[in-house]
Amino acid sequence: MTMSFKGKPSRRAFLKGAVAATGSIAGASMANAAGDPLITQVQEWASGTGDGVDATLYGMPIQFESDVIRRNVEWLTADTISSINFTPIHALDGTITPQGCAFERHHSGAIELSKADYRLMINGLVDTPLVFTYEDLERFPRENHVYFCECAANTGMEWAGAQLNGAQFTHGMIHNMEYSGIPLRALLEEAGLDAAGDLKDKWVYVEGADASSNGRSIPMEKALDDVLVAFKANGEALRKEHGYPVRLVVPGWEGNMWIKWLRRIEVTTQAIESREETSKYTDTLEDGTSRKWTWVMDAKSVVTSPSPQAPIKHGHGPLVITGLAWSGRGSITGVDVSIDGGKNWQEARLGAPGTDKALSRFYLDIDWNGEEMFLQSRARDSSGYVQPSKEELREVRGLNSIYHNNCIQTWWVKADGEAENVEVS
Amino acid sequence: MTMSFKGKPSRRAFLKGAVAATGSIAGASMANAAGDPLITQVQEWASGTGDGVDATLYGMPIQFESDVIRRNVEWLTADTISSINFTPIHALDGTITPQGCAFERHHSGAIELSKADYRLMINGLVDTPLVFTYEDLERFPRENHVYFCECAANTGMEWAGAQLNGAQFTHGMIHNMEYSGIPLRALLEEAGLDAAGDLKDKWVYVEGADASSNGRSIPMEKALDDVLVAFKANGEALRKEHGYPVRLVVPGWEGNMWIKWLRRIEVTTQAIESREETSKYTDTLEDGTSRKWTWVMDAKSVVTSPSPQAPIKHGHGPLVITGLAWSGRGSITGVDVSIDGGKNWQEARLGAPGTDKALSRFYLDIDWNGEEMFLQSRARDSSGYVQPSKEELREVRGLNSIYHNNCIQTWWVKADGEAENVEVS
Repeated sequence: MTMSFKGKPSRRAFLKGAVAATGSIAGASMANAAGDPLITQVQEWASGTGDGVDATLYGMPIQFESDVIRRNVEWLTADTISSINFTPIHALDGTITPQGCAFERHHSGAIELSKADYRLMINGLVDTPLVFTYEDLERFPRENHVYFCECAANTGMEWAGAQLNGAQFTHGMIHNMEYSGIPLRALLEEAGLDAAGDLKDKWVYVEGADASSNGRSIPMEKALDDVLVAFKANGEALRKEHGYPVRLVVPGWEGNMWIKWLRRIEVTTQAIESREETSKYTDTLEDGTSRKWTWVMDAKSVVTSPSPQAPIKHGHGPLVITGLAWSGRGSITGVDVSIDGGKNWQEARLGAPGTDKALSRFYLDIDWNGEEMFLQSRARDSSGYVQPSKEELREVRGLNSIYHNNCIQTWWVKADGEAENVEVS
Repeated sequence: MTMSFKGKPSRRAFLKGAVAATGSIAGASMANAAGDPLITQVQEWASGTGDGVDATLYGMPIQFESDVIRRNVEWLTADTISSINFTPIHALDGTITPQGCAFERHHSGAIELSKADYRLMINGLVDTPLVFTYEDLERFPRENHVYFCECAANTGMEWAGAQLNGAQFTHGMIHNMEYSGIPLRALLEEAGLDAAGDLKDKWVYVEGADASSNGRSIPMEKALDDVLVAFKANGEALRKEHGYPVRLVVPGWEGNMWIKWLRRIEVTTQAIESREETSKYTDTLEDGTSRKWTWVMDAKSVVTSPSPQAPIKHGHGPLVITGLAWSGRGSITGVDVSIDGGKNWQEARLGAPGTDKALSRFYLDIDWNGEEMFLQSRARDSSGYVQPSKEELREVRGLNSIYHNNCIQTWWVKADGEAENVEVS
């Protein structure tokens, strides 16, 4: 494998160099590759009025994008009650995830809970236990923040080696939305925390209104820091499957703690050690012991295109390599990309400066020579942490884990532009 | 009208003061207003599994939100081919507008144009006229930016006095999305601008592939500045009604120039003076002459809640006043809110620091005494401009205009919480 990397091409001759190879650009002749005259004649779609729009319906993607969905495979989970659906990150750009294709994890299906029926109780070590209606929550001062939500099991099947052929399935248990909600701190202060005494060792236990309840313990320090009780995502109500009407947002921490259909918050003297934080969402090491309280999602990144579901179709020449990076410990400060399996690295361009616990989009614009590549990306965050290789991660964690796999991903992009999930050593 | 304004209430007693009035908060008894015991019993929705989710479909809002749509009225336009649909801003929070409920203006309906059929021609005063396929465009370096898009006619019916009863209809011809695309500058440079000579007085004429073509002239200075050729909004493909697969993004300038189904860009020595920039999208003054080239959308704001479509239902006490502010000349630096029709102003809290040519969300948290209010908001931008009153705007512009009404809006909120669109003097 040899790669001749020329860096960013001269802008003026950007695509001209590619014309001969792809045949898709026509110059002065104004004809496309097939030789058809273009645009100088009236196109079919310009010869009459277009379609009317029924604006009483929610606006849907065009039919040509019907493959940009959360799931087009049946084989990953046995049913739709206990299941996982994936963000089609291979087909998206930018950083915001539309709710319509944002990943979901269901422990006991999705419940339909109206605002009128909704109640949120705060009890335990508080001065005054309180029950809030949805309308009550709307009266508290609100904040807006864009945060990523990643399932602890994202990339989990890769512990055993390259398994799933597509960024949607290896890295698509993540979404990134603008949340509007109330700081949990404000609700706890409303109930009064004097009864809890010294807050240093206190916890909150949070649970949802669905049958799984999905209860989790959160240290008081985090609860009073940046946790939100949210009712909007990307401006609109949460989807039913995302916890309508109210979910918890626990920035930077594993998605399992982002309780949907939030119904109760109990202030306690210790962690509850619930099912979801003992038999699951712990990380078993090589010696058989398990790490617990591994809440934070460490810095991670993935190239979303080219990738197995987004092969290169245009031949050699200018190529946009793009992907996502994120860190639960702060903001992304940089992303490096390698096209030779980690031998050489080049700093990618961030679409915007990284923000706290949110997705960053990165780009590397190259002049592809048409030879195979072993594509990797490596994230760096504001804590100084650098995303590890698969080898480095296994060295520390062994092979028994399911959760918290944040290793560097490799796509083998072949000369024909098709890509495969592989491991390099 | 007298208002006792107490400012931000003490957090600890935030809702307790409101309990007696609304009856909606129960304290130690943990019973709601109806006296039902809550949460200590198993709720219906926790007694069995929820619904399975068909992830092969695009995820839709829950049925309870079926009124959060672009239009629930028939009477504004005669048909759905030449029509306008409105963002339900009264029901949204945050700043991002989901594509599914983002406003649209249709001049000749919405055309269905596949990526395979799509072509973009650059001609006129360029070194090499070029025709790009969609795939060609995907090979250019991309940028991501959040920008608002506002129809020049937004708030236009209010020139004649308070007309439409609802923020969705007075101010909902606006949306705010994260665009991914290519700087137009890059495509113009690809075609070569030496042939155009001195660029100072040059223009580009841009048109769409639909029957209306909707052609507009843009000065070269703007074309080379921040205009984008965009193919994604909020990460996913543009909706058909927003110009799939490619639209122009002209930050801060009137929405009519954001050409949908972009098919041609011609470099010219002068403006074309097309239909859409002569007979329409000009502003007729008191003396009968018309202003042209009024491209920029000046600073503006509106209270979205409470508002006629979002009345106060919870009685007096803590109240969140919220709204949107924006400026085509830069970023929002502050928003003032008045509850007494402009006699007294209080600085609102911005949800986040203002960013260039994008919506800002503002909040003012008050303790409402239950008396009527004349609610107004007033935006300030980074150019030093302050949003004018209706009187000030009419003084300069007269009453003959349709477009570019950016005056301060007034909602009369009555003691029962219902709101009406009114004028104050």
